[in-house]
Amino acid sequence: MSSRPGTSSLTDGTEDIQAWLEDIHQQARTRLGQGHVASYIPALSTQDANRFGIAICTNDGRVYTAGDAREPFSVQSISKVFLLTLSLRAFGNALWERVGLNPSGMPFNSLAQLEAERGKPRNPFINAGAIVVADSLVSAFATPVQVIQDAARRLSGNASILIDRDVLASEWKHRSRNAAMAYLTKAFGNINNEVDDVLYAYFACCSLSMNCVDLAVALNYLAAEGYSRKTDEQFVEAELARRINSLLFTSGMYDAAGEFAYRVGLPAKSGVGGGIVAIVPGQFSVCAWSPALDDNGNSVVAQYALELMSDRL
Amino acid sequence: MSSRPGTSSLTDGTEDIQAWLEDIHQQARTRLGQGHVASYIPALSTQDANRFGIAICTNDGRVYTAGDAREPFSVQSISKVFLLTLSLRAFGNALWERVGLNPSGMPFNSLAQLEAERGKPRNPFINAGAIVVADSLVSAFATPVQVIQDAARRLSGNASILIDRDVLASEWKHRSRNAAMAYLTKAFGNINNEVDDVLYAYFACCSLSMNCVDLAVALNYLAAEGYSRKTDEQFVEAELARRINSLLFTSGMYDAAGEFAYRVGLPAKSGVGGGIVAIVPGQFSVCAWSPALDDNGNSVVAQYALELMSDRL
Amino acid sequence: MSSRPGTSSLTDGTEDIQAWLEDIHQQARTRLGQGHVASYIPALSTQDANRFGIAICTNDGRVYTAGDAREPFSVQSISKVFLLTLSLRAFGNALWERVGLNPSGMPFNSLAQLEAERGKPRNPFINAGAIVVADSLVSAFATPVQVIQDAARRLSGNASILIDRDVLASEWKHRSRNAAMAYLTKAFGNINNEVDDVLYAYFACCSLSMNCVDLAVALNYLAAEGYSRKTDEQFVEAELARRINSLLFTSGMYDAAGEFAYRVGLPAKSGVGGGIVAIVPGQFSVCAWSPALDDNGNSVVAQYALELMSDRL
Amino acid sequence: MSSRPGTSSLTDGTEDIQAWLEDIHQQARTRLGQGHVASYIPALSTQDANRFGIAICTNDGRVYTAGDAREPFSVQSISKVFLLTLSLRAFGNALWERVGLNPSGMPFNSLAQLEAERGKPRNPFINAGAIVVADSLVSAFATPVQVIQDAARRLSGNASILIDRDVLASEWKHRSRNAAMAYLTKAFGNINNEVDDVLYAYFACCSLSMNCVDLAVALNYLAAEGYSRKTDEQFVEAELARRINSLLFTSGMYDAAGEFAYRVGLPAKSGVGGGIVAIVPGQFSVCAWSPALDDNGNSVVAQYALELMSDRL
Repeated sequence: MSSRPGTSSLTDGTEDIQAWLEDIHQQARTRLGQGHVASYIPALSTQDANRFGIAICTNDGRVYTAGDAREPFSVQSISKVFLLTLSLRAFGNALWERVGLNPSGMPFNSLAQLEAERGKPRNPFINAGAIVVADSLVSAFATPVQVIQDAARRLSGNASILIDRDVLASEWKHRSRNAAMAYLTKAFGNINNEVDDVLYAYFACCSLSMNCVDLAVALNYLAAEGYSRKTDEQFVEAELARRINSLLFTSGMYDAAGEFAYRVGLPAKSGVGGGIVAIVPGQFSVCAWSPALDDNGNSVVAQYALELMSDRL
Repeated sequence: MSSRPGTSSLTDGTEDIQAWLEDIHQQARTRLGQGHVASYIPALSTQDANRFGIAICTNDGRVYTAGDAREPFSVQSISKVFLLTLSLRAFGNALWERVGLNPSGMPFNSLAQLEAERGKPRNPFINAGAIVVADSLVSAFATPVQVIQDAARRLSGNASILIDRDVLASEWKHRSRNAAMAYLTKAFGNINNEVDDVLYAYFACCSLSMNCVDLAVALNYLAAEGYSRKTDEQFVEAELARRINSLLFTSGMYDAAGEFAYRVGLPAKSGVGGGIVAIVPGQFSVCAWSPALDDNGNSVVAQYALELMSDRL
Repeated sequence: MSSRPGTSSLTDGTEDIQAWLEDIHQQARTRLGQGHVASYIPALSTQDANRFGIAICTNDGRVYTAGDAREPFSVQSISKVFLLTLSLRAFGNALWERVGLNPSGMPFNSLAQLEAERGKPRNPFINAGAIVVADSLVSAFATPVQVIQDAARRLSGNASILIDRDVLASEWKHRSRNAAMAYLTKAFGNINNEVDDVLYAYFACCSLSMNCVDLAVALNYLAAEGYSRKTDEQFVEAELARRINSLLFTSGMYDAAGEFAYRVGLPAKSGVGGGIVAIVPGQFSVCAWSPALDDNGNSVVAQYALELMSDRL
Repeated sequence: MSSRPGTSSLTDGTEDIQAWLEDIHQQARTRLGQGHVASYIPALSTQDANRFGIAICTNDGRVYTAGDAREPFSVQSISKVFLLTLSLRAFGNALWERVGLNPSGMPFNSLAQLEAERGKPRNPFINAGAIVVADSLVSAFATPVQVIQDAARRLSGNASILIDRDVLASEWKHRSRNAAMAYLTKAFGNINNEVDDVLYAYFACCSLSMNCVDLAVALNYLAAEGYSRKTDEQFVEAELARRINSLLFTSGMYDAAGEFAYRVGLPAKSGVGGGIVAIVPGQFSVCAWSPALDDNGNSVVAQYALELMSDRL
């Protein structure tokens, strides 16, 4: 939101940043023990609540880590950023005829609003919105899941990124609420493919297993005016990167986006796997991860780490 | 949201900025004729839809104007920024026990959400939230309306700012919906004073008559890390200014905050009088005004002017 | 709903009916101790939860009682039947342009539905509906409260019926939620008088103090095809009496109308003072009263007494 | 709702009743041309809007008809009465732990209320409620569709009643909204079988093709204290028949149950195929059918015929 003073420390030198990051990690880990690991699917509920990692990727390509930054976890809703970016690359502004841009003001899996607004989801970061985005990718690509997995691999530079088949099977088995949303959206004509195909693609992306470094590197294009250093391409235009950041700012943290914006003031996307990616435009991307969540579905410790980081920027 | 490149033009020199502003004004006025002047109270409906002014106040205190920048208009919901700032100065974070921080996802005058969330308004920029903030000021000050008017005068450096008594009378006469919100909030124990007293204070602030220059100057503290050049004081702490900007970003533009953030990417607050104040942190504050509104209650031409300005920053 | 077999006992003779009623009273009082006395206004909360009376008024004018049938209590929402009847006498079907006829499916004091349906209350037995009916009577009569009190006196044959001024003062003091409903309705143009005047009339009727005998006698016209034996007049036409009974059947028991219809199967109206009036068309009217309420606001013991009575009809 | 006077004509003699019915048919057909044939599935939209039949089945087993009373049509929601009766026979009051008894106050296919009330449908006559009832029958019977079809055949005495496979295929193809409801209910744990199996059973029953005579005869047990003359058995207990009638009275006519109760005053169930079955307890059952519907989904002409009939009872 601002050109903050005093961010020079991040460009001073490797040692300073590393120490700064470890200090944040040290302080944030005092909140381990708070919150609850996601239980809505069994495959997530077995995560160790005491894990906590954090990774930074600066716009000049350096990576700094603290804690469990290289342990893979389920990206869950963070994948909505990949879905959105790929759909905007394929369809441009035409996507916004099918999905809105405004905060929802409702829980991320609400059907009441979807019904009242006749199947046009409020934004691409609530479940219904991401399902519509997934539908667009099922239309655009013969193998949409492959396309998304490839994008995650190329943007992160980690060719071994996989979909966690246990998580995917668990998502599928417990798909009732997401299926309800997809069918309701289809009832209003806003899903073009078979619901089962769309849900499969959506769940597969949620089930990507990535670590903090992977995610910080892969989403660095949002900090770097759309440029991906890994693929050495303008992944999206600078203006579009800014716009996605605005959307993350207003709607990236489930129903607590406003509180997070007030406290932390950075564009960010969380997932119920415990990960949060945040963007400091022009400087760096960061991913923090710790499985225990607050009532809004956001990682307690990862949020606190980002709040500490924001305070010190 | 970002440290934008190419903003140096604003500090280059008076002539360049003035030409830049006039150019924006020239282009934006092509949308005069679109939208509709607010009709919910008669006193506003008589405004001339063809008026259009814009004023910038840079953080070093220079003011640039184009069009009808010195014609007074009814500030309406822009006053919610003054209300919030004064209440945060008086009560600090205790205010957030009574008002939320998250986007509403509902029209600004909705009762359904207020009822579902048991009288705690979603944020201080929807009507119910501003009424609770007004209630806090009625508790804090013997003459709350005087306090708010004085603040507007001192921050803008314009001692002749007045409450428009015709607008105030019209607001009062057509108070039914706001009265419903206030009584519902009181039913949940979140209004401490008499509803009539709170509504009077709330309407009086909405009825302040200010011009683009007044507003750009008065709210420049949000661009200048909390510092008011007019009163030469730290009006709010730098961190609090950043936080208010975050709130404006997520909830300042009625139910279109997300769209405005996506398109324009600046913290802003609109009023149904046709004014919009936007903040470019670290650089300047701006107020655009033109009475005709879109379906969300935001001025068509003022929004477009800010979008053009954002594109050129 | 049916031509029940075995109702002949009611016409057999005075002794049989009296014994039958006392037996029901004896069995129903085993549920004293369940439920909670209304606490939303202090003036009601002091009622003795152990009081329990029941009175029957047959269509040929005989009255039978058991327990505290002559102890006055606050009629509360039972007054909505008087309000409706008087308004239908004054306005006929024109009333239905302002109030609906369908069950609400929401709590009796909900604002969400009233907002969604643009100020047209679902039916005359939810608060918002009764407030609109009261508004019609404020328009129709110079002294509406006097008119209603007179009607209650004449129909019951008890000239000493009074408005309980303590209850009225308490209702007024705690009027916030009803005021919110009234103002919201007015915001949609469906209240024609000053909200304060309408609420006063509405609360005054709620505050009528009547006993079981009064109410059973006064509302006997609904059992007797519209004819009032006390005033010896066709108070409403037979068809209108049937229609009011249908409304009571579908909407008379707050949000539990369907359950009550399923279990008891009689048109009925309850009040939070603990009274319930029920109608056995063609035979008799009955009023049971005991202050402790279930979660829907209906008297536990009075409901049970009516259920027992229905089983034995 | 009442022991109506003047119903003796129905038992006087065959000729009188026949003339009376033809007279009603003659008058009601003046409204042919109003309303619109259901279009939500193609298989229904091709119905001829000018068809209109009516059939009465008296409790002593005589059948009277007028117009197209022997032309089969799609029973649609009228099948919910069969579903409910069969489930109550199988599960008794245990069913009411899964489905409510109160009017919905919302459109019959609403998801908002289902979500707010955590997957417990308001009553068995809204779609979500009937889907839960269907789920109970899928649990209870190896071949639930066969069981329901057999019941319809035996109760009506028409062994040639069939499921219309075109309608069933069309329902299945356009199942999105019902699928959304079923999945949402399952998400709350209130569907025990596979959603596809439950929907298939539900749609199969909706797709039963029956005529006015079939339906009047089959549902006569509700008029005859639970006794079916065709099968010569107490199909349900007398008390249960009364209770089902109460439910029909409060919730049988979609979101217009209150209006229908006020105007007509009979327990009734409508379907979007244009049929309406109504019950005159103790006397007869009646089925009217004409395809064109009003905005609530109830046949315009069939409703009017029942209103005329009620006026003349």
